[in-house]
Amino acid sequence: MKLYESPSPNALRVQVFMKEKGVDCERVAVDLRAGENISEAFLAKNPGGRVPVLELDDGTYISETVAISRYLEALHPQPNLFGDDALSMAKVEMWHRRVEINFLLNVAMAFRNITGFFKDRETCVPEWGEVAAGHALAAVPMFESQLGEQEYLAGDNFSIADITLAVGWGFAKQVKVVPLPQCPNIERWLAQVQARPSFQAD
Amino acid sequence: MKLYESPSPNALRVQVFMKEKGVDCERVAVDLRAGENISEAFLAKNPGGRVPVLELDDGTYISETVAISRYLEALHPQPNLFGDDALSMAKVEMWHRRVEINFLLNVAMAFRNITGFFKDRETCVPEWGEVAAGHALAAVPMFESQLGEQEYLAGDNFSIADITLAVGWGFAKQVKVVPLPQCPNIERWLAQVQARPSFQAD
Repeated sequence: MKLYESPSPNALRVQVFMKEKGVDCERVAVDLRAGENISEAFLAKNPGGRVPVLELDDGTYISETVAISRYLEALHPQPNLFGDDALSMAKVEMWHRRVEINFLLNVAMAFRNITGFFKDRETCVPEWGEVAAGHALAAVPMFESQLGEQEYLAGDNFSIADITLAVGWGFAKQVKVVPLPQCPNIERWLAQVQARPSFQAD
Repeated sequence: MKLYESPSPNALRVQVFMKEKGVDCERVAVDLRAGENISEAFLAKNPGGRVPVLELDDGTYISETVAISRYLEALHPQPNLFGDDALSMAKVEMWHRRVEINFLLNVAMAFRNITGFFKDRETCVPEWGEVAAGHALAAVPMFESQLGEQEYLAGDNFSIADITLAVGWGFAKQVKVVPLPQCPNIERWLAQVQARPSFQAD
């Protein structure tokens, strides 16, 4: 197995997921700033032009962070990170989507449209970036409330939803386009999650 | 079980999924135009304020189209719609996310920002709607190419990725904000998918 990646929230999500599973593989750096991800050679691996991409030993390519994670979960079911019965699987999926679609995607749109980080290759609309930042903020009380009642986002067990929110929250803090409010429950949970061995740098 | 829904692409995705599984339940109409989904009573069911929401017999609520679908898949594994081994599960997840994130979400943003359908409750940025329409269009060749080589989007078997692309494609045709090109492979596949009993109106 070989993982094509570049420094990004999605690469970090896969790195943490792999450490939780205790698996590792060869890493290949992809230079996003130089546009390596939209080169012909890379588009043959992933026509979507995105990292990370996992190459299997038979030459099959799996792209999309969560598809890679599900592949690893199927091969290494423990520790379980997607739920292990109908209801827990549904709860993980529900909370993970709330994090991804309502928060992380909006933070990413705010970042790209406000800062123009990829303006050499996409049309940026700063006004939309501000709207997206507002949508990301609007999702925060849902997580703050849930983490006041539950140890982890989807309930009693640590899951991929926690990985994505912790990485997304860190990214939002770093790029500073979303004015995150004080959230004592999220901060309690974040300290706990970030203390896990899987969140330590190599 | 009880399903809260309103006429929308996501409601249709769940309806088709349930018909594929041969399951049904009580339906409760939610009036989006009147803002019933953002009423206090509904937000207690789903703090995200979105439909569909599945209420279980014990009063548990599951929101998010794909979380509802995964719950039903776990209870009724056949016919399998999410893949049944590590690689097929990863491929379904990968193609499903390409459809959802690269195509359907962009069609929805184009629709909402260009037409101002929900302008009574959200800020619309028409310029972003045009950019999102362009992003949706840019994803189409990936599906057209795949469906020239495979019977279904994720390979040999019909999956939730096909449901989402068929519903999303129909929605894009209906709302006319994305100028869809001629795509013979997608049209071949669409005719086949839309002929399934699960796609017939009640």
